[in-house]
Amino acid sequence: MSYSPLLLRLIEGLRCMPGIGQKSAQRIAFHLLERDREGADRLSTALAEAVNGIGHCRRCRMFTEHELCSICEAGGRDATQLCVVESPADVMAIEDATGYRGMYFVLMGHLSPLDGIGPDELGIASLDEWLRAGEVQELIIATNPTVEGDATAHFLADVASRHSVQASRIAHGVPLGGELEYVDGGTLSHAFFGRRVVD
Amino acid sequence: MSYSPLLLRLIEGLRCMPGIGQKSAQRIAFHLLERDREGADRLSTALAEAVNGIGHCRRCRMFTEHELCSICEAGGRDATQLCVVESPADVMAIEDATGYRGMYFVLMGHLSPLDGIGPDELGIASLDEWLRAGEVQELIIATNPTVEGDATAHFLADVASRHSVQASRIAHGVPLGGELEYVDGGTLSHAFFGRRVVD
Repeated sequence: MSYSPLLLRLIEGLRCMPGIGQKSAQRIAFHLLERDREGADRLSTALAEAVNGIGHCRRCRMFTEHELCSICEAGGRDATQLCVVESPADVMAIEDATGYRGMYFVLMGHLSPLDGIGPDELGIASLDEWLRAGEVQELIIATNPTVEGDATAHFLADVASRHSVQASRIAHGVPLGGELEYVDGGTLSHAFFGRRVVD
Repeated sequence: MSYSPLLLRLIEGLRCMPGIGQKSAQRIAFHLLERDREGADRLSTALAEAVNGIGHCRRCRMFTEHELCSICEAGGRDATQLCVVESPADVMAIEDATGYRGMYFVLMGHLSPLDGIGPDELGIASLDEWLRAGEVQELIIATNPTVEGDATAHFLADVASRHSVQASRIAHGVPLGGELEYVDGGTLSHAFFGRRVVD
């Protein structure tokens, strides 16, 4: 005894999402069929349109359905600064929190040889070309402070130095509002040895 | 600054699923676009087909794309026993774990007046009609042992008694393999006062 073929296919389809296992997929399928068929319909359309329409910005690799994303398209941004991030969500976070007005380059991941993700998958050739053009004066590396993010940061710094571009990395340390005793040892040690003179 | 319209619509669409908030929706959208467009395409089709094709079994309210579900359709099941459950997943669990060969009735929820879910939403009229037909001799109530499930169980017992059908409820107590000291007090008390003579 099992579910009907269409229901099985729906549950199987939902499992392609990261973090959704068999039980969650069932729960979601029942919810959509029982309480939100309109939402399921909208999601179906949104998925089809996104898969067919969304590609990468020719310049910075951000997701967009146009040739250039809205930031690369916009005039008036500082073309001498280029900030490299791992994911589109990082672009949003930096745009929302900081006054940064330079450009971005989105790796769409980090170096991870075991998963088959190398420089080619991260579009390093495009970055190389961008830096070769000579307009960028500072490469701001904002990869995550993880093992893979650190390795990627070192790799990016090498790329920058090949083009004699200044590379910098965003600061890591105790988060604002954090209490020292609850911060993990690695972060605290990093913050301690990275202390700066108060001026 | 925000995501492109198609990407926004995808993230918004994903949020119709229970338990998926803004951050999870973003993560899922990026994953599908970057690493599994084929899966997203399959999911889109599965959703559309499910919404258009899947309805309820005319008899037991189970999800199915046919008029009758596979259990109601199948011959050779015991029509004198009718087991009432809250969700399609409960049917699967009982089918897999027990040797039960009777019929099912799926409420697709439980009584919850605050959410506007009353007897009409649970299809009690169909159940009433089924019991009136006179074939059923035992109504096995397998709603969840929660406050709402208990209220629903009492309601179902009343329906059964109106038709002079014997109502029973599945046993609640200490789960097999569970250790007494780790079982919650309510369950333990229920198990203690529901003790049975060893024969």
